[in-house]
Amino acid sequence: MSLASLSDDQRFGLSRRVSLPGPLHLDGGATLSPVEIAYETYGTLDRDAGNAILVCHALTGDHHLASPHPRTGKPGWWQRMVGPGKPIDTNRFFVVCANVLGSCMGSSGPASINPVTGRAWGMAFPVITIRDMVRAQALLLDHLGIARLAAVVGGSMGGMQALSWAATYPQRVAAAVVIASTARHTAQNIAFHEVGRQAVMADPNWREGDYYDREAPARGLAVARMAAHITYLSEAGLTEKFGRRLQAREAKSFGFDADFQVESYLRHQGLSFTDRFDANSYLYITRAMDYYDLAEEHGGRLANAFASATRFCLVSFDTDWLYPTAESRAIVQALNAAGAPVSFVELSSPYGHDAFLLDSPELDRIVAGFLGA
Amino acid sequence: MSLASLSDDQRFGLSRRVSLPGPLHLDGGATLSPVEIAYETYGTLDRDAGNAILVCHALTGDHHLASPHPRTGKPGWWQRMVGPGKPIDTNRFFVVCANVLGSCMGSSGPASINPVTGRAWGMAFPVITIRDMVRAQALLLDHLGIARLAAVVGGSMGGMQALSWAATYPQRVAAAVVIASTARHTAQNIAFHEVGRQAVMADPNWREGDYYDREAPARGLAVARMAAHITYLSEAGLTEKFGRRLQAREAKSFGFDADFQVESYLRHQGLSFTDRFDANSYLYITRAMDYYDLAEEHGGRLANAFASATRFCLVSFDTDWLYPTAESRAIVQALNAAGAPVSFVELSSPYGHDAFLLDSPELDRIVAGFLGA
Repeated sequence: MSLASLSDDQRFGLSRRVSLPGPLHLDGGATLSPVEIAYETYGTLDRDAGNAILVCHALTGDHHLASPHPRTGKPGWWQRMVGPGKPIDTNRFFVVCANVLGSCMGSSGPASINPVTGRAWGMAFPVITIRDMVRAQALLLDHLGIARLAAVVGGSMGGMQALSWAATYPQRVAAAVVIASTARHTAQNIAFHEVGRQAVMADPNWREGDYYDREAPARGLAVARMAAHITYLSEAGLTEKFGRRLQAREAKSFGFDADFQVESYLRHQGLSFTDRFDANSYLYITRAMDYYDLAEEHGGRLANAFASATRFCLVSFDTDWLYPTAESRAIVQALNAAGAPVSFVELSSPYGHDAFLLDSPELDRIVAGFLGA
Repeated sequence: MSLASLSDDQRFGLSRRVSLPGPLHLDGGATLSPVEIAYETYGTLDRDAGNAILVCHALTGDHHLASPHPRTGKPGWWQRMVGPGKPIDTNRFFVVCANVLGSCMGSSGPASINPVTGRAWGMAFPVITIRDMVRAQALLLDHLGIARLAAVVGGSMGGMQALSWAATYPQRVAAAVVIASTARHTAQNIAFHEVGRQAVMADPNWREGDYYDREAPARGLAVARMAAHITYLSEAGLTEKFGRRLQAREAKSFGFDADFQVESYLRHQGLSFTDRFDANSYLYITRAMDYYDLAEEHGGRLANAFASATRFCLVSFDTDWLYPTAESRAIVQALNAAGAPVSFVELSSPYGHDAFLLDSPELDRIVAGFLGA
């Protein structure tokens, strides 16, 4: 693939997969080579490669950012944010979104083939960190000829990557947009992820991760997703959306079917997730998030993580109890201490953590304004 | 058993099990007969039976209220609250605590023998409600010759029973103490319970509830308990207790062992729970809690649930996010509208919902003062 061919391609959303030789040195001490990365690009890279924006996806996301998913036909997960004339304007920016290391949408992860054995890695895949994901993305940008990003943008785990980008490669990041995110996983965050991992590992089909030629641990993964999904929504949002409303039937069944709409909704969330996500990837990525603590990586002081070379935009949502506003404020304080320019807005939304993916004209204006500045 | 023998018994904490003929008519339409109830009593019942206090236990609790558990030797679950000279003073009151209907500590539940088949009920046990638990307790009080309670006291699900007592038998309840509780389960409450039920049902050992002569679905039940346990603690409490501290080892393992103390703690909570609790009982009791909505039982208006015959004391904890203070306030407003005397205190505690079981001199003073009045 050449950059020329990229620029010449007129189709919106160019989906590619690249095998980079690496080697990629991981925080855990292991080395990965080659490194497969699935990614999409939108727009045209300038001659000086100065107009690139990297968008980082969340835990269960993928690189199908702004064009329909090739298999499901579903719209890209941030189509409302990325496109011609949209807040991340592809008429102006060359936008890259890569599937994270450890995931299962085309980038190297536990479901990939281990070149040594010729079989899926499973739990032999090395444990990774958020910083390792960022290092893999840096390899991709090297490959694409992008020395410095105009911006890195992400929500939730995408925001962790954006922060880690600024901390790991300050000279390669002009600006960072960090939405509904945090600089570290708290005990409660870890606790919820641990429940999910134990649910997966309790499924006898998990077989220590060696299930790729058998039935997958779908029931355990569904339970994990259900538990996590509760943390993505606010109590008020759940009440507004479902309250105690019953399913179609008129009265309680006095049984264990999904009587309440919220039960049926959660079951659906759990089951549909298992169609699209690999259980081992869920273990690896949640582990990476739990290990994540930017301050810890920088001598215990968050301000040490940041240089003044990058300008920041932070956004939180008032009903987000997964990564509440206080976590964003802690980052803002550290950025102030580091002398980095930062703007911060707490938006009001009934939808909890998930608000960053939903229609929000205020968020659109903030992102557009920050990138336009 | 006669009341005389009860009064004469000098041992503190008289543990009994009674089989009452019933029949008990359940909200779901079924009838239960006989009704087994395991219970303990403390203190001496007055000649006029006017000094009885019923203490109602929480989801996974039992009737071993204030004396050591006969099998484990552990102290009673509310030993600090109930005893001679304690806030619920057994020198003055005759205190009764009964294992709830549906549980597995001696009262009728899915693990009990179905007299028709001679085998454990399993999922053939009728689905029950909080009000059904209260009806079973009323049968027990009839048996004990207690026409009217000086007070009914409970925290969490015990508080739901206390409210349901006042609503169902207003003439039999002089006073009710409702701690860290609610008048209905919200969508989020239901969601967490549904995750737990799905975790149990996803365990292949569950076998549609028919596991009593085989291996129990311990792994699923452990996951259910882990998820629930997070809701019993506050984020601040978890941070204070564990933060991101690692286990004994010095550094991250870059594996999937319990690196963080909070992981190890949760795993222990899950595993130890399966030694003492029946998975089917967990399904039945969480279902009863999810069905619970006092307003719904009274024409949609909570105030209709209450008469002015009972005086109330409500206590909430400021960091309880399972049944937050707003839920207690809603009950207080309904009691005001019903003309029932009520006192309400929100206590400050870092420990979230679990605070009602922990050492709290303020709570002790409130309970002692209310019962002494």
